[in-house]
Amino acid sequence: MRHLLSTVGLARDEALGILDLAEDMAEVATRAVPKLPTLRGRTVANLFFEDSTRTRLSFEAAAKRLSADVITFSAKGSSVSKGESLKDTAQTIAAMGIDAVVLRHSASGAAEVLAGSGWIDAAVVNAGDGTHQHPTQGLLDAYTLRKTLHGDASRGRDLDGVRVAIVGDILHSRVARSNVWLLTTLGAEVTLVAPRTLLPTGVDAWPVRVGTDLDAAIAEAPDAVMMLRVQQERMHAAFFPHEREYANEWGLDDARLARLAADTIVMHPGPMNRGLEISARAADSPRSVILDQVTNGVSIRMAVLYLVLSGSDPREVAE
Amino acid sequence: MRHLLSTVGLARDEALGILDLAEDMAEVATRAVPKLPTLRGRTVANLFFEDSTRTRLSFEAAAKRLSADVITFSAKGSSVSKGESLKDTAQTIAAMGIDAVVLRHSASGAAEVLAGSGWIDAAVVNAGDGTHQHPTQGLLDAYTLRKTLHGDASRGRDLDGVRVAIVGDILHSRVARSNVWLLTTLGAEVTLVAPRTLLPTGVDAWPVRVGTDLDAAIAEAPDAVMMLRVQQERMHAAFFPHEREYANEWGLDDARLARLAADTIVMHPGPMNRGLEISARAADSPRSVILDQVTNGVSIRMAVLYLVLSGSDPREVAE
Amino acid sequence: MRHLLSTVGLARDEALGILDLAEDMAEVATRAVPKLPTLRGRTVANLFFEDSTRTRLSFEAAAKRLSADVITFSAKGSSVSKGESLKDTAQTIAAMGIDAVVLRHSASGAAEVLAGSGWIDAAVVNAGDGTHQHPTQGLLDAYTLRKTLHGDASRGRDLDGVRVAIVGDILHSRVARSNVWLLTTLGAEVTLVAPRTLLPTGVDAWPVRVGTDLDAAIAEAPDAVMMLRVQQERMHAAFFPHEREYANEWGLDDARLARLAADTIVMHPGPMNRGLEISARAADSPRSVILDQVTNGVSIRMAVLYLVLSGSDPREVAE
Repeated sequence: MRHLLSTVGLARDEALGILDLAEDMAEVATRAVPKLPTLRGRTVANLFFEDSTRTRLSFEAAAKRLSADVITFSAKGSSVSKGESLKDTAQTIAAMGIDAVVLRHSASGAAEVLAGSGWIDAAVVNAGDGTHQHPTQGLLDAYTLRKTLHGDASRGRDLDGVRVAIVGDILHSRVARSNVWLLTTLGAEVTLVAPRTLLPTGVDAWPVRVGTDLDAAIAEAPDAVMMLRVQQERMHAAFFPHEREYANEWGLDDARLARLAADTIVMHPGPMNRGLEISARAADSPRSVILDQVTNGVSIRMAVLYLVLSGSDPREVAE
Repeated sequence: MRHLLSTVGLARDEALGILDLAEDMAEVATRAVPKLPTLRGRTVANLFFEDSTRTRLSFEAAAKRLSADVITFSAKGSSVSKGESLKDTAQTIAAMGIDAVVLRHSASGAAEVLAGSGWIDAAVVNAGDGTHQHPTQGLLDAYTLRKTLHGDASRGRDLDGVRVAIVGDILHSRVARSNVWLLTTLGAEVTLVAPRTLLPTGVDAWPVRVGTDLDAAIAEAPDAVMMLRVQQERMHAAFFPHEREYANEWGLDDARLARLAADTIVMHPGPMNRGLEISARAADSPRSVILDQVTNGVSIRMAVLYLVLSGSDPREVAE
Repeated sequence: MRHLLSTVGLARDEALGILDLAEDMAEVATRAVPKLPTLRGRTVANLFFEDSTRTRLSFEAAAKRLSADVITFSAKGSSVSKGESLKDTAQTIAAMGIDAVVLRHSASGAAEVLAGSGWIDAAVVNAGDGTHQHPTQGLLDAYTLRKTLHGDASRGRDLDGVRVAIVGDILHSRVARSNVWLLTTLGAEVTLVAPRTLLPTGVDAWPVRVGTDLDAAIAEAPDAVMMLRVQQERMHAAFFPHEREYANEWGLDDARLARLAADTIVMHPGPMNRGLEISARAADSPRSVILDQVTNGVSIRMAVLYLVLSGSDPREVAE
């Protein structure tokens, strides 16, 4: 794998290969020797033009567990604030001898521009670009779904027949987009549930069902309910319902939690607005796999960094 | 040792065990191989909700000298600024596979809440919580006192009969609280000297003498004078004397420096307000062990990280 | 080498030794094992009182490639903002067991003060002090000139007869000062080209020619044209020409690019103001060695960190 830019176009077998490798990573890295020498001497640059502490730390933890070095570029107080372009920043960092760039940027498409431009030789991993894509989030969600539903028998399996409701601020969510394309590629049936003002134009062309009634979606007993963070920082006030109205209509509150089917799990990419899109009880309930998502995120990022830096799956090499 | 939260309740033998282990650390880590493989593969998270560069760097240096990986979470520009709670932040960081959390927080009691809540499995080390406690500072001060007074014969010894004057802004000082309880547990006699407005309510119940006259305290020839940082950032103007008045009455100025007994040492936790609570001459005098405190802080933090991550004293295991 | 503070007074042979060692570093560190164990257990502190992401990351990459640990002190949000002095900050960091301090400071002369004061034992590397010096930039520029002009035959050679035009904001440029003294020591002929208001008082005493006509300088077919960043953040508006006028008179625009002699190379220390002192076409042209400068910077910093931390050239030890 040369880069990881998007879940659109990620083939089923390639996606399953990443999930399986992440399972290997999770197993190996928790044994007696928690650190693998695999990427010793390689350097990963976290190139964050937008703040995202949790994503940055997850990639950092993944890289270090593979013995890679990590250098972090944060746009704050950098030459970017002196007007430097993405091109110059990325070329400069890459010229220091970086093997992979993990890019977070506010502009949708930034990762594809960087990877396709020929500006740098380093591998590019998209860690979130505007409202566009956040592919490692999609992968860790697919991993979490598969592992929760299939347990030790998950290797090699896809999400055929798995039903997932993604709820809330679809409009601004790269998490939703990454999940929609990846989960359906893996065979899952995805339903989006959102107020009309938080549905993107063109959603009719997505391979999903769309609704505005969370109670109806819950009544269908999906395997998973994925609550999205309400990104008020990205909204014009005019498009956003009153917080209490939002919580009443599209929040996973205690009443809805009680009506979930016996096996429905609760997901959230974090950070949560407790009391808005999800109640504290729902977040902390035994159905919640929210912290598993965080843990699995490190395994997924280990797999992705490995693949873009080695260029191939280690098991293929071994065969 | 599961966590290190406070010096209150830290037993004499446990405290001496930490000090002795820190002496071992200081000896081993300065030899030809300055880095120990002891904590290779372990990850320490610096979780700093308040800025504190020197404490953060000291823990970071300690962890790296034991070959642990360090990831740093700073609340600035993080999801905390998006309203995330301590619980969610700590659980998220811990779910990335962290073994120990070093917590600095503006709320008194935050470390005990985090450790007692069951929110995370990781060890918790309190690196300062509000005006409450900063136990590694207390330990490094005890270490510095013992080492300065007893030198090579310090191992196993407590501070029996050692007399320490702690001077200044007691009200806002977690350093003072950590020292009062630890030093007296180790047998020292502590005198607090402060303006009445900078003494906390309830100080009468502390195991110390309390005075407001620095000259009287100096005349008693204590073994150590520990000057506290005036924390103007925590004060209402109404409670704080004029700076010149403060320096005149409660500062270790050149005149008082000259009247110190021959063996009295000068301590300060830093950062110093030179010219306010301490004169430049006092800070730089041969009596000053202020930089020793910084050096010893790394050894103490190596010992503490070792103990909370290994669960036991290495010498006990060896026996 | 005890410290690296300035290119003034750096002897020809010492400078060539650094350049040659940097060539060794570049060769060794790109082979199968990209990381050298040379400085394992040593700790380098990046002490940055001014922001400079690219210089900081370059030193960090260099230190890590030599297996040193790096801790970063940034003045923002630190005790410096609470009024702590350079002396106290540096002594505190050094007391944590640091072997070398890489210092960036806004005050001209800060590095020499720190090294000459006896405040700390650690080696001091000047990473930019005010408008004074930035010696590793001078060295990486000399390295880039030598390598570009002499290729594989560059080892041991100086810059005898090489002609370099340094163009633009000389007044505020520590890069210009570092280059003037180093390049002339190595035998190069340096011409400064700048508007009169951006020439420092006393430039007549420098070992250079001075002009104000970029077209005339270009017509002389120098081996290299080094465009300086216009540092508007350091300027009083009164001294700075209108941007368009500046670009017209002293910028390397497309017309001037086309008139450069066949072998003239284009340099820039970055970050660039594209469209101001340099056009995009010039920056990205085959003549541009701007990214080579970045790459070479890591090799130079590896060599410098090695020399100040080992105290001698490894090949001398081996002999």
